[in-house]
Amino acid sequence: MALIRIVEDFHPENHAALLDRAKELMPVLHHRIVLPKRIDSCSVLSCQDGILPEELPHISLGKGEELCLDFGAHYVGRIMLDLSHAGSHQDAPAFLKLTFAETRAELEADSEQYKGWISGSWVPEEYIHVDVLPARLVLPRRYALRYLKISVIDTSPKYKVVVRHAECMTQTSADPGRLDDFSCRDAMLERIYQVSLATLKDCMQEVFEDGPKRDRRLWTGDFRLQALTNAVSFRNGDLVKRCLYLFAGSRFPDGRVSACLFTEPEVAADDTYLFDYALFFVITLEEYLEEYEDAQALEELYDVAMEQIDIALDRVDDDGCVTPETVADTFIDWNDEVDKSGCALAVLIYALAYAVKLADRKGDARKAGELAGKAEYLKQAALKHYWDEKAGCFLSNGQKSIATQVWMVLADVPEPEAAAELMGRAQEFADDYPMQTPYMHHYYVMALLHAGRKEDAVAHIKAYWGSMIEAGADTFYEAWNPDDPGASPYGEGGSIVNSYCHAWSCTPAYIIRRFLT
Amino acid sequence: MALIRIVEDFHPENHAALLDRAKELMPVLHHRIVLPKRIDSCSVLSCQDGILPEELPHISLGKGEELCLDFGAHYVGRIMLDLSHAGSHQDAPAFLKLTFAETRAELEADSEQYKGWISGSWVPEEYIHVDVLPARLVLPRRYALRYLKISVIDTSPKYKVVVRHAECMTQTSADPGRLDDFSCRDAMLERIYQVSLATLKDCMQEVFEDGPKRDRRLWTGDFRLQALTNAVSFRNGDLVKRCLYLFAGSRFPDGRVSACLFTEPEVAADDTYLFDYALFFVITLEEYLEEYEDAQALEELYDVAMEQIDIALDRVDDDGCVTPETVADTFIDWNDEVDKSGCALAVLIYALAYAVKLADRKGDARKAGELAGKAEYLKQAALKHYWDEKAGCFLSNGQKSIATQVWMVLADVPEPEAAAELMGRAQEFADDYPMQTPYMHHYYVMALLHAGRKEDAVAHIKAYWGSMIEAGADTFYEAWNPDDPGASPYGEGGSIVNSYCHAWSCTPAYIIRRFLT
Repeated sequence: MALIRIVEDFHPENHAALLDRAKELMPVLHHRIVLPKRIDSCSVLSCQDGILPEELPHISLGKGEELCLDFGAHYVGRIMLDLSHAGSHQDAPAFLKLTFAETRAELEADSEQYKGWISGSWVPEEYIHVDVLPARLVLPRRYALRYLKISVIDTSPKYKVVVRHAECMTQTSADPGRLDDFSCRDAMLERIYQVSLATLKDCMQEVFEDGPKRDRRLWTGDFRLQALTNAVSFRNGDLVKRCLYLFAGSRFPDGRVSACLFTEPEVAADDTYLFDYALFFVITLEEYLEEYEDAQALEELYDVAMEQIDIALDRVDDDGCVTPETVADTFIDWNDEVDKSGCALAVLIYALAYAVKLADRKGDARKAGELAGKAEYLKQAALKHYWDEKAGCFLSNGQKSIATQVWMVLADVPEPEAAAELMGRAQEFADDYPMQTPYMHHYYVMALLHAGRKEDAVAHIKAYWGSMIEAGADTFYEAWNPDDPGASPYGEGGSIVNSYCHAWSCTPAYIIRRFLT
Repeated sequence: MALIRIVEDFHPENHAALLDRAKELMPVLHHRIVLPKRIDSCSVLSCQDGILPEELPHISLGKGEELCLDFGAHYVGRIMLDLSHAGSHQDAPAFLKLTFAETRAELEADSEQYKGWISGSWVPEEYIHVDVLPARLVLPRRYALRYLKISVIDTSPKYKVVVRHAECMTQTSADPGRLDDFSCRDAMLERIYQVSLATLKDCMQEVFEDGPKRDRRLWTGDFRLQALTNAVSFRNGDLVKRCLYLFAGSRFPDGRVSACLFTEPEVAADDTYLFDYALFFVITLEEYLEEYEDAQALEELYDVAMEQIDIALDRVDDDGCVTPETVADTFIDWNDEVDKSGCALAVLIYALAYAVKLADRKGDARKAGELAGKAEYLKQAALKHYWDEKAGCFLSNGQKSIATQVWMVLADVPEPEAAAELMGRAQEFADDYPMQTPYMHHYYVMALLHAGRKEDAVAHIKAYWGSMIEAGADTFYEAWNPDDPGASPYGEGGSIVNSYCHAWSCTPAYIIRRFLT
């Protein structure tokens, strides 16, 4: 997730007791030393097909020469290089450019051609002068990578640079020892399942990051999907709990949960409020409690959750529709052409179902009843304002988008039989307003399943996530259009800042374990 | 000095006892915190004329914006920046470019346009990602600078970068407490004197560096001139001694003193032998002993010095001329069009005079006599082969260059009266093969003085070094042509790698103190 909202003079309100709890839940990071598996290409040896890393100390790189190390899989970690030289004594600094890449294609991109709207500072490349060789170069920053290209910008005519040794110290708070030995009978589903887990693993750090390349922080929408997949895999319940406390612990001054949270240099809510994302706090809390039973969390976070519901309900007008300002604060998907008013209302109804369960869990029957009543009222409003009998689907301000159908189905606005029929029809116009993110594709698959269209769901998973695998994905991407593999939501040259290991794309493992076995 | 020679499979021979002595003489570095004196220019404030550094924390820099700090004088040291941000929370790394410059003009140069023959890695610029603000950025490398330009390559639309504080921790092994309160009556000479001392100060580090920007190491030719100026100023005799032991301690396997020496990661002679530069070892040793009297150094370094003389004499042919291969190994000046055979012979004769004194000092009368005889023989050979009565000057393979006259005069080849006349005439054709370095200009002034032409000498110091001052020099440059201030010996765009604080340019202070007061 990445999105830019700015509130002038924003100061989040921090709740020390909640943040202290989050601090206590700081996860242990698991580390492992990983060596390059092959030299993927090297301008000196003209090896496009790769040679063994044992060759590394025998390659010397002069000005303008480069080599690319392939660590064999996607990792998050820190890089150490043992550098040396060949020829005469080093008589000038070595000037190196290091380019880190999650995919092979990123290495070919030119960062200077990026003209998009998020920061170009996310491009993972470093320029480094080494005054004295030999040197052990321990890079201070963390990278998400499979590939590392080492380019010698300059040496001197007297010596060349030798990379004697390279290693990556990986890190994740996912404990692979927690995985069971499940595997899918279907070969493609099995590959999708494994890549889902690899994606989640590398996003699990001190929090559930949206992407370890970028933005490296919590977004409620991404977090909810990670928590679901975590429940069927690494089962790090404490990490889910920690993130819930973080979101509750730093909020807008009026109590709203932010869409996004920073943890460095200190915990701070971002000045970005998204209507749907705030509601995912409620949903994720309920799902966490369902999964792990935790009286303390229920006690301490219940009010924050109910506050989100109350704030959301305040944004409903007399007709039972979400106000236009609130619709503008709703994410749903990257596709800005989608009219999101129907989706916004549906997400609220969807969240109310979780809120009712939460109130029941708390023994707050009065609130449960009240919210159930609201949900029913809003469902009727949704049918009244959005269902178009003639079109046979939901129209959002006259617009027939797949997103609106998906969320109306997930919110149980249509009856089950109508939903099944709708999700059949909806596939015909799905491309009118194409889904742009794996995040939206997830909810599409969930709507298919919810409407009893399991075969369609499986087919879509195989077609969509499967096409990423066929394109060579080691982890699932932030954005993916099988018909336009280089597409980016970030503007001109944007594929270089795309994240290729992104939390909101990890859900096939969840769907496979919970709905397809 | 910078020059590229390569000997395949070169392994210097190190002499542990001599290097141990050098290690014992490691100087104390004097440190001082220096703050910017003004903000020289800033794209945000459009301040071309400078504003006070107190404004610094109030300037916030967005993408593409920059500011330039002026530390008010030339320093060698390390930089610390306290960085912060303005606007929303930092949601992407800050990507900064730092450009260090000894002169204002360097800041305007584009490093990508440099296509010269020494390493572009000497261009003092860094690209840095800062993941978390606020941050204290302590740069690990040492810089030679007066100016520091901080350019924000990228932030994000949500925040800007603030440089709250900047400081330079300077370093030098020159102790200003050792300076007396001498000053010149002539205002221009006084300025030249002060800038000479500033130049020497910043080149005095753990060794006498040729330039703190580049190459940051010992060259015998530069070292000799620094030792002379040091004797009339900071009087760090131990540093001279240390460098003599370093040159003696790591040599070519056949005993030759290298033109250049590395001290990192360990002491190692470079694979560059220069005939004239090796002889400066003998000269500098004798001058050191004359200045400081040091029985230990005489005892331990005498043989190394005599070995250099013997090696040099072996390179003289039966006619009393230096062999062509040896001439090719002779530096003299950057001007490659100068025929250096006459100079090479003259430098040997010049060095023999010091060698005779050294032998006398050692009580080695036999050697002193033998060398005096050789010197006399070579002077006659020089007169015979190089003096052209018709031209009234020395011709080197028919070529009439100022360099040849200078070295013949310094070697006492012509009688004093003839020398005086010659150095008068020589000024007329000095521009036929122009002197290109302050190093050559130094020897030109010394030849004028040696020939009794003090007024010409003073005039030349004022004209040549004075023109650097008028051009704004805080320290004297490696290369300087008053008629072409941007000239560089390093090829296309080379002024960006020129050193603007260079040891071999610091001698006016020596000349003023020893010959003009």
